[in-house]
Amino acid sequence: MSTAYCACELAQKLGGELRGNPEASVTGVASLAEAGSTDLAFLGNNLYRDAVLPSAAAIVLVPADFTPEPPAGRAWIVCANTSAAFSEVVDLFAPPPVVFAPGIHPRAVVAADAQVDDSAHIGAGAVIAGGAGIGANSVIGANCVIGEHTQIGSDCLIYANVTIRERCRIGNRVIIHSGTVIGSDGFGFIPGRDGHRKIPQVGIVQIDDDVELGALVAVDRARFGKTWIKRGSKIDNQVQIAHNVIIGANCLIAGQCGFAGSCEIGDNVMFGGQVAVVGHLHIGDGAIIMGKSGITKDVPPGSTMFGIPAVERKQFARNQLSLHRIDKLVSQVRELQARLDALQAATNTAP
Amino acid sequence: MSTAYCACELAQKLGGELRGNPEASVTGVASLAEAGSTDLAFLGNNLYRDAVLPSAAAIVLVPADFTPEPPAGRAWIVCANTSAAFSEVVDLFAPPPVVFAPGIHPRAVVAADAQVDDSAHIGAGAVIAGGAGIGANSVIGANCVIGEHTQIGSDCLIYANVTIRERCRIGNRVIIHSGTVIGSDGFGFIPGRDGHRKIPQVGIVQIDDDVELGALVAVDRARFGKTWIKRGSKIDNQVQIAHNVIIGANCLIAGQCGFAGSCEIGDNVMFGGQVAVVGHLHIGDGAIIMGKSGITKDVPPGSTMFGIPAVERKQFARNQLSLHRIDKLVSQVRELQARLDALQAATNTAP
Amino acid sequence: MSTAYCACELAQKLGGELRGNPEASVTGVASLAEAGSTDLAFLGNNLYRDAVLPSAAAIVLVPADFTPEPPAGRAWIVCANTSAAFSEVVDLFAPPPVVFAPGIHPRAVVAADAQVDDSAHIGAGAVIAGGAGIGANSVIGANCVIGEHTQIGSDCLIYANVTIRERCRIGNRVIIHSGTVIGSDGFGFIPGRDGHRKIPQVGIVQIDDDVELGALVAVDRARFGKTWIKRGSKIDNQVQIAHNVIIGANCLIAGQCGFAGSCEIGDNVMFGGQVAVVGHLHIGDGAIIMGKSGITKDVPPGSTMFGIPAVERKQFARNQLSLHRIDKLVSQVRELQARLDALQAATNTAP
Repeated sequence: MSTAYCACELAQKLGGELRGNPEASVTGVASLAEAGSTDLAFLGNNLYRDAVLPSAAAIVLVPADFTPEPPAGRAWIVCANTSAAFSEVVDLFAPPPVVFAPGIHPRAVVAADAQVDDSAHIGAGAVIAGGAGIGANSVIGANCVIGEHTQIGSDCLIYANVTIRERCRIGNRVIIHSGTVIGSDGFGFIPGRDGHRKIPQVGIVQIDDDVELGALVAVDRARFGKTWIKRGSKIDNQVQIAHNVIIGANCLIAGQCGFAGSCEIGDNVMFGGQVAVVGHLHIGDGAIIMGKSGITKDVPPGSTMFGIPAVERKQFARNQLSLHRIDKLVSQVRELQARLDALQAATNTAP
Repeated sequence: MSTAYCACELAQKLGGELRGNPEASVTGVASLAEAGSTDLAFLGNNLYRDAVLPSAAAIVLVPADFTPEPPAGRAWIVCANTSAAFSEVVDLFAPPPVVFAPGIHPRAVVAADAQVDDSAHIGAGAVIAGGAGIGANSVIGANCVIGEHTQIGSDCLIYANVTIRERCRIGNRVIIHSGTVIGSDGFGFIPGRDGHRKIPQVGIVQIDDDVELGALVAVDRARFGKTWIKRGSKIDNQVQIAHNVIIGANCLIAGQCGFAGSCEIGDNVMFGGQVAVVGHLHIGDGAIIMGKSGITKDVPPGSTMFGIPAVERKQFARNQLSLHRIDKLVSQVRELQARLDALQAATNTAP
Repeated sequence: MSTAYCACELAQKLGGELRGNPEASVTGVASLAEAGSTDLAFLGNNLYRDAVLPSAAAIVLVPADFTPEPPAGRAWIVCANTSAAFSEVVDLFAPPPVVFAPGIHPRAVVAADAQVDDSAHIGAGAVIAGGAGIGANSVIGANCVIGEHTQIGSDCLIYANVTIRERCRIGNRVIIHSGTVIGSDGFGFIPGRDGHRKIPQVGIVQIDDDVELGALVAVDRARFGKTWIKRGSKIDNQVQIAHNVIIGANCLIAGQCGFAGSCEIGDNVMFGGQVAVVGHLHIGDGAIIMGKSGITKDVPPGSTMFGIPAVERKQFARNQLSLHRIDKLVSQVRELQARLDALQAATNTAP
């Protein structure tokens, strides 16, 4: 942790252009605001442009269009993607990651007919039910519960206290954070005033390769068939995915979104936080749904939506503007009334 | 799983009228869109009316008012409730449900003075504290934690990784999905600028017969007395129920709703997803609260509410309409101004 | 639990003024609505003013400005803070709290190089990883998982099934309710249409003294540096705190709020439920954010905000009012048109 790197060395590693003091030296990373004189920081968001010069950071990674020169003693390294470059530097200083050694912890409970690859790690207190399969190099964290006949691929990282119920299918390189629940029953009832009759939920959940699920996410099993999250989608904490939902490939879904039953999301769709999508809707490829929106109709590909109920972002802006025109309208109408009164008096045409 | 059923056989089982090919045969179920030529599908929602004819499904369960004839080789079965009938067919093809054998897993930890019925199942890693009671045929999933003196009735199904704290009371036939927490402290503090003093939360949670709670639901214990969910209510994933809330009988509450302290919900109330209810309010029997609403006042029985703050659905629609009338108003006022200018000029009455 | 207290005794204990029957006697506490004739209740919220006289409660704690006299046989005790006084009475009748005896349960799994104070309680099934430290009198509930090198101070109460990942720092007297996850990866990716590249999240979470976190809260670790919750803040169930967020001291955050990455909250800020805050924003000291708001801009200290996007509460009220003026505007404009038509006809000045 006490290794030091100089600006010249880092510029070379990152393939960036060095400005200012090549001997500026750092032993850690920090944000612009928090950096001390031995830290490296980065400008990844124009919001923080004015924070670069006042920062104490010895070295700052900046984009090409950042023109001010570094003050005496400090250095900039110009990078095409400052955020990616910063991650590389972070790795230099990062503590070694936790190592999950292959093998089954003696305090894990693995059914006799479960298939656990020798290279997999099964943590203390984890419970692997009958017929389940755990692929090569996958990690099942402490106190996880993996249900009957559930199949988990290779190179997965399932953190502590995750629950995956029976017969689900998890691909390769899937990351699932703690507290997440996969395969709980869908919310389906035949309603009646004297009691609601449960509709059996006998389908499964399928999660494809390279998906990441945050902490405390809920993904319900299908009524029949499957609830399906396709390849490469990344889902933040506390998201709720109901039965028979299909999430397309490479979606980005921020925290606390909720997807009602059987809605179908295209590929490369982005969701801000706390969005809700009504059941049985389609959202087209590449759409952007802004935070807190409530989607109540199908969304065409490529649209940007906002509001409750959500409308095209431009329409939302127009509505907001309209609201602000009311005050002016009120005074205009008052003025018209006065003028008309005066005119009627002048022309002696009482109403 | 490879059993095949023909249309004539299924029509008889379901008590439905057969149309088309009586020999049409299926080996599984699927949605209209996903069905292959050996699947049975159903039309449960008019949204999907136009998907019946193009579907490959050999057999489709349809309502009486669906008039098109089945294409050659295919069959319809006319059912009074296609969704209920479909569930019956799903059961024919469903994999056998997981069996939870009676007995205490050797890796469970059960206090000496806990009362566990011989027919109950206590999963691996489950912890049952002193004085707790588990009724006949109830299942406590792996790694659950059941607190001191908590009583769980008979025929309950508590999935893995559920936490129920001390002195709570759970009725019979209650289903609780994974990750749910019952009996955590209510959020109560005496605020102060130099620190907030915790108000003791010494009440309990009572959950009556036939309630179902989804995954990752939070139900706080009462400050005193009880937080209470009455008979037959069904609650979806990630719902938050604060201290001293009363949820009436047979409510249906969709995902991610939040109920603040001491609010009281009548019987047969329905909530869309992500609704919030302010503390100390009453919602009358049979009300419908649409998704994403924020309830800030008492709601009379039978009302349908929407918006933030929520108003009667009709009022919400009127407000939306008003917003769209502003553009027209602006041009009308402009026109009036021009006419008045012209009239003043014509009558030589300068203002 | 069968101890009885008379009004005179309780008035003395609470330092309150006694009105009515000094011999009125109680054996328990309840709300005004639920109280029977042997219960004590309190008037803590003016909403319930009209419930005092009809209540069956033998004794009611009332504020000084409550003037009606107690009916025959009943008593009031006048208290400066009825809610605080009620908590004292609740304690008299409360069942004894659960006792967590010092020591490591034989079914816990504690790494050889973890440092657990002799006075700490480690519950059954809890897993304490290498290098972790648990301070004096702290309780780690059953089936919790504490990661590598995480440090937990003294007098902490971590309820069952909590997950805290590696290298986090928890202060003293911190309470964490069940199901909560601390230190999961921040949601950070370099987006690309053919897949999103994960940005390493190598920072930590720091939680200062006297913080309380509800059930099923998610607090992500920082991308670098720390996600930080400062001294004395109280956070309700199911709140989501993203990477690099800073929550100031003594904040009160109601259930299901979400804080996006790097936002910074001042001291003594209050949040209603289901609020969302966009990333990289600042909220000033002492602000009040009303429930369900979406904060999309910096908030000055002391402001009260509401709406999506949120505006000053007064502005929100004005906007609502404007909406209700539209109907009137429409009829006024119609009337002006008619008058102008008539005037033009009368003055023979056709347009």
